[in-house]
Amino acid sequence: MAVGNGDLPEFKNINGVRLGVAKAGIKYPGRRDLVVFELAEGATTAGVFTQNAFCAAPVVISKANLEKVSPRYLLINTGNANAGTGIQGMADANACCKALAELTGVAEEAILPFSTGVIGEALPVSPIVSGLPTALAELSESAWAEAAEGIMTTDTRPKGVSRTVNVSGYDIAISGISKGAGMIMPNMATMLGFVATDATIEQSLLQEILSECAGLSFNRITIDGDTSTNDSCMLVATGKSAAPELLRGSVELELFTEELKTFFVELAQLIVRDGEGATKFVSVIVEEAQTQQEALNVAYTVAHSPLVKTALFACDPNWGRILAAVGRAGLENLDLDSIKLYLDDVCIVSNGGRDAGYTEEKGQAVMNREEITIRIQLARGNVSETIWTTDLSHEYVTINAEYRT
Amino acid sequence: MAVGNGDLPEFKNINGVRLGVAKAGIKYPGRRDLVVFELAEGATTAGVFTQNAFCAAPVVISKANLEKVSPRYLLINTGNANAGTGIQGMADANACCKALAELTGVAEEAILPFSTGVIGEALPVSPIVSGLPTALAELSESAWAEAAEGIMTTDTRPKGVSRTVNVSGYDIAISGISKGAGMIMPNMATMLGFVATDATIEQSLLQEILSECAGLSFNRITIDGDTSTNDSCMLVATGKSAAPELLRGSVELELFTEELKTFFVELAQLIVRDGEGATKFVSVIVEEAQTQQEALNVAYTVAHSPLVKTALFACDPNWGRILAAVGRAGLENLDLDSIKLYLDDVCIVSNGGRDAGYTEEKGQAVMNREEITIRIQLARGNVSETIWTTDLSHEYVTINAEYRT
Repeated sequence: MAVGNGDLPEFKNINGVRLGVAKAGIKYPGRRDLVVFELAEGATTAGVFTQNAFCAAPVVISKANLEKVSPRYLLINTGNANAGTGIQGMADANACCKALAELTGVAEEAILPFSTGVIGEALPVSPIVSGLPTALAELSESAWAEAAEGIMTTDTRPKGVSRTVNVSGYDIAISGISKGAGMIMPNMATMLGFVATDATIEQSLLQEILSECAGLSFNRITIDGDTSTNDSCMLVATGKSAAPELLRGSVELELFTEELKTFFVELAQLIVRDGEGATKFVSVIVEEAQTQQEALNVAYTVAHSPLVKTALFACDPNWGRILAAVGRAGLENLDLDSIKLYLDDVCIVSNGGRDAGYTEEKGQAVMNREEITIRIQLARGNVSETIWTTDLSHEYVTINAEYRT
Repeated sequence: MAVGNGDLPEFKNINGVRLGVAKAGIKYPGRRDLVVFELAEGATTAGVFTQNAFCAAPVVISKANLEKVSPRYLLINTGNANAGTGIQGMADANACCKALAELTGVAEEAILPFSTGVIGEALPVSPIVSGLPTALAELSESAWAEAAEGIMTTDTRPKGVSRTVNVSGYDIAISGISKGAGMIMPNMATMLGFVATDATIEQSLLQEILSECAGLSFNRITIDGDTSTNDSCMLVATGKSAAPELLRGSVELELFTEELKTFFVELAQLIVRDGEGATKFVSVIVEEAQTQQEALNVAYTVAHSPLVKTALFACDPNWGRILAAVGRAGLENLDLDSIKLYLDDVCIVSNGGRDAGYTEEKGQAVMNREEITIRIQLARGNVSETIWTTDLSHEYVTINAEYRT
């Protein structure tokens, strides 16, 4: 199941980025499972990584390498997350990087590894290393769609966004792919995002922009609240467009960053739309909060509530569950009589109870939709936050409970 | 579905407590749905209530009345939670209390109301008021089993614990009932607990003891993480046993409190065993934490993880999901190499990865059990916490999604 249109876009090539994909047989034969990004010399790269304390070996290595040199290759495998693998996991990830370094003649530190798939099992180094020559032989500027497929695990469809934005008369291309649908045994699916642009942006500035964009996109989606050990999102700027360097404080940078935020949100939302068992795409908007933190607390409490999620699955306008979730979000001195709750444009709660104008029919009409907005007005301040989530369906339980039966 | 033996005990009468039950037709005809506790003059009563900001009208009233006088009656209805009902809800709850006050000749403040059932709908005052004479006519010291049934909503079985404890040569009786199984539409099931003893304990001391006992029992269970608007737990001490008053600081009080803690844990666990769709009863024990808060953070993160819960449902020893949940619990400077995870007595994780002695067979053997302990040793300090939870099954989704279809 998945919500909305999931067709891949026509990808813009990004001058300075080539992609090579191989079927290495890491977990299943005949499936694209190994992806290499080749980045031109001079490209800048920024990354954000999982906050999970048990982060996977490739995450540890990528974070460390990114501090040292400008990456030249991103090496991504599916079928195995190389997480919960201790010292052996580090050695295995390093072995893969070393093999790619030898084949390409770059320093080992110039390679960032990424893994996604089952956790707690040793990384199958041999098929990965054996697959590298094929992936390198396939390197092409136009293999974005194949790469989008090559990073999938339990995703039901590949995910990508691509466009050209015009900044002060210059065209700048952006292409990106993402993966993730929840988690599944024996796969622990993880969220990965790779975005490249031909813009010219200095590395530390690029890192700031990525952090901002990820904060508004990948860090605002939730399917089941379970943070993976492998989440990573990378942003590459090759500097190969005709546009001048985007400098800190410039109007051009501001324009580009706004476009990039929208781009990231779209890419992140594709993950929610393909959430495990998803039948709904739900925006949770919290308005009139005192602080960002309290807005997010309310939003995530609602988005993670199994009772809200099962009601969404059932198309049941059970607004009491939303109200109860808001009530347990831990906000001090909540003025219950001032809070308003809406399902799309239908006010469901005001004055501490059901809104006078609310009818079951109005609520039902909204709940029958595939895309729904839950809007919560706290009447405490002027901070807003939006996150995106899915419902909780039988299919979710089936995927996560019965995978091996 | 429910886990373990659910037979009611043979209830000890509590001298000073009489119970009356009626079939008032609040939501369904022919079902016990109205319960009155009559408390003898001189009894002390303590209460703990939901932390949900949207607490129900009866909770507001019970909390306020408990501050004023010693309660003489507890009035409990199922079929309607009287929550999310605004000003009308307060008026309706007061009307029920007033009717009971008139029938019994006590002050209105001496009545504590409790409601459980659907939220957001007006309380049907008329059947409740009409049912009161029957409930009063039925008052009896031995109606605990009927009362246990009379407070049920989506519970699949009534829940009670009863025993006599010997304190320094004197017998003290304790009987208690509880209800709750999760939440369901149109019912929002709530957790209620009513415990009475014939011990003699001064009110403020009784409140301290209840807070301590509830903290270790009702506040340590979770089914879906959704806190209801109506949770209430009451402890009554009638002072009618032959035992002398239990005084602060006495050995006798300490002995009694220890017994009461065990009693409360048992009563609370009955709720988990009857959790919506439960096929497993799971103890999550966190040891060697620095603080109580971090122990609880880890325990609840594991207990609420949909991925851990679906793996439990599937009897799947998917330990990576437990590890990932521990990793996202927000503990700073976690030393991954020192953490140990156990399923019952089987060590699953050590040195940052799968324990050397772990085998899939050993893990599977534990997961096939109906009662499972997940033990997490953090190697950071000496604080331990235990909570109890269930798995996440198809039945849970069915109950919560398809109730009205």
